[in-house]
Amino acid sequence: MQEEMLKQLKRGADEILVESELVKKLEEGRPLVVKAGFDPTAPDLHLGHTVLINKLKQFQDLGHEVQFLIGDFTGMIGDPTGKNVTRKALTQEEVMDNAKTYQEQVFKVLDPGKTKIVFNSTWMNKRTPADLIQLAAKHTVARMLERDDFSKRYKGGQPIAIHEFLYPLIQGYDSVAMKADIELGGTDQKFNLLVGRQLQSAYGQVPQVVLTMPILEGLDGVQKMSKSLNNYIGIADSPDDMFGKIMSISDELMWRYFELLSFRPMSEIDQWKQECESGANPRNYKVSLAQEIIERFHDAFAAKKALETFEARFQRGAMPENMDEITLQAQDGGLAIANLLKDAGLVKSTSDAMRMIKQGAAKIEGEKISDPKLVIAAGTKQVYQVGKRKFARVEITA
Amino acid sequence: MQEEMLKQLKRGADEILVESELVKKLEEGRPLVVKAGFDPTAPDLHLGHTVLINKLKQFQDLGHEVQFLIGDFTGMIGDPTGKNVTRKALTQEEVMDNAKTYQEQVFKVLDPGKTKIVFNSTWMNKRTPADLIQLAAKHTVARMLERDDFSKRYKGGQPIAIHEFLYPLIQGYDSVAMKADIELGGTDQKFNLLVGRQLQSAYGQVPQVVLTMPILEGLDGVQKMSKSLNNYIGIADSPDDMFGKIMSISDELMWRYFELLSFRPMSEIDQWKQECESGANPRNYKVSLAQEIIERFHDAFAAKKALETFEARFQRGAMPENMDEITLQAQDGGLAIANLLKDAGLVKSTSDAMRMIKQGAAKIEGEKISDPKLVIAAGTKQVYQVGKRKFARVEITA
Repeated sequence: MQEEMLKQLKRGADEILVESELVKKLEEGRPLVVKAGFDPTAPDLHLGHTVLINKLKQFQDLGHEVQFLIGDFTGMIGDPTGKNVTRKALTQEEVMDNAKTYQEQVFKVLDPGKTKIVFNSTWMNKRTPADLIQLAAKHTVARMLERDDFSKRYKGGQPIAIHEFLYPLIQGYDSVAMKADIELGGTDQKFNLLVGRQLQSAYGQVPQVVLTMPILEGLDGVQKMSKSLNNYIGIADSPDDMFGKIMSISDELMWRYFELLSFRPMSEIDQWKQECESGANPRNYKVSLAQEIIERFHDAFAAKKALETFEARFQRGAMPENMDEITLQAQDGGLAIANLLKDAGLVKSTSDAMRMIKQGAAKIEGEKISDPKLVIAAGTKQVYQVGKRKFARVEITA
Repeated sequence: MQEEMLKQLKRGADEILVESELVKKLEEGRPLVVKAGFDPTAPDLHLGHTVLINKLKQFQDLGHEVQFLIGDFTGMIGDPTGKNVTRKALTQEEVMDNAKTYQEQVFKVLDPGKTKIVFNSTWMNKRTPADLIQLAAKHTVARMLERDDFSKRYKGGQPIAIHEFLYPLIQGYDSVAMKADIELGGTDQKFNLLVGRQLQSAYGQVPQVVLTMPILEGLDGVQKMSKSLNNYIGIADSPDDMFGKIMSISDELMWRYFELLSFRPMSEIDQWKQECESGANPRNYKVSLAQEIIERFHDAFAAKKALETFEARFQRGAMPENMDEITLQAQDGGLAIANLLKDAGLVKSTSDAMRMIKQGAAKIEGEKISDPKLVIAAGTKQVYQVGKRKFARVEITA
């Protein structure tokens, strides 16, 4: 039983520091305090964010206490160097608004009744400058400069303001204040999570176990999922968008998404994978994944409707079973639709492509293209259609 | 007039950053705020400390406002790493006691009515951790690591705790809170004083002028005056001790002390120096210096008595006008009295020396030696006597 639990918790995890300590804590049989910290900014989550939240859910389902930490203390300071315009100081009200939006989103995965939302301003605003100095005394300059990004900037002669050394300490102190047993974070957060371990020891606590989750790749399968790269599936996306986007990913990426995004047991997923390797059509499994995701962020009815719309679109388009399979090379991470249609041999020129798009005669996966400036991301493989009879399945490589 | 003032202020100073700014501030004609910071610990001052205090007095005499800053905020934190046992946290009461002792001592030089004693806890305790972060944002890690001692420790692999980077910032912020026009400090404080300049600019103030004073050499003329090296003249020393110690210094050091410790105009001192070069006995000028110092820390009567005692001792001892002049090499900065007497040819062996000391038959400058383990510092030149007739003037070189 204990072993099964550990196996589940390890699913998809990048690193557990230290696994033997996790085993020991699990054996205590009490609900463990599981910490995960989030910025109080930009609360517009995509599936990349949910990798971590799904892991929190696992802990929650196993009876542990998830504490969802909003790092509002530093958020309300903003970037005091004034160099970072995107990080201006937030008001208490903005923080609370963002926190609310966060909650609405994460509660599509987590159980609201079992999730504690905490704010680090609660304890940090009660501290004095002297307390902060005491905290700063617990870590050394040399160790802080070992952090990857600091190290690069220092060696590269780029300025590091001294307060930037305080933020990891404050994050680490949160673990002390929360008496965290486990902290979850992305692999890029590893250094900060380890500061938490070290500070807990310094303050006489049993250090937290650090569990890092990988950064999810976006639809292209290469770069990390992010809004700015436009390779994301937002958890507020419409059911049809979610369906279309998931159907567009590569088969390889599908298995990655199954591991990190699906709640199905790994044994089942492994079996499906074998079925595919034995000749089953991956498309059917992709549909299952899409259905599961839509059910989670919308509901079962929406999932069913999205599937029907998708299929109807294909039937309406009378898409042939066999068509040209073309591979094109992306430029700057994508390909303009007009160029794509021309290079795929579906139109004679880019101006021809523009005209067809304007007439509503060009489609992607059976859906009319409305934006003639659309850029298709690398890593996608979709069916493009011009007029009634010209089809091509085009894969775009990075 | 302005020029004469500037010349006085520059007397003995190591550096003025920036002199043109000082001129400009002096030309404004208003009383300038002159800051000097002191630790709230070890308030047992010696003449080395007074070099700075004398400079403060000059400003005070010229009508400027001296603010004597006690750095109690960090003193009440102590060394939070716990590594430094000599720097344990002080209580509010201890700080106030120390401050009182400080005042009693510095008011022997400064005018109590014109001196403002301030404590940085006054403004620092009103700050929040967020304020401290804002402050830390005003300086970079790279610039802090340029400080001599930090640079050495970092390169040498010796740990620097992060709070050590905060102390210079807090000291610098004191200048902001005090709206200091000028800050005085020892040459070893230059980096910290410049942080004050930089922070004032960052907070929109006209930056303070930094004036550094040299570190005074001790009686040996080589190492800095310090209690632990036992080469100091404490301002609480008895008039006789002061007299004897000053009479023991080298002629060269005497002119240094005149520049940094005497309130006589430099023109007079320069003239005396010329007189000595023309053959006058330096001893007479040394007596004048001793008299001035004793008058300052005791009174004119005490100075006169000390001179009389000193002279009487020489007469009682029937010290010959001519005697052997001997130079001995110090070992580890000094020479044990028994070895000295033997090497000077005043006794046959060290055990002989011990015996004579115990009998009260050995003297330094006419005064009985009571401690047989006495170590004489390098740099001194004194008359040693054993019995009634054996004399030698012994100089100890480093």
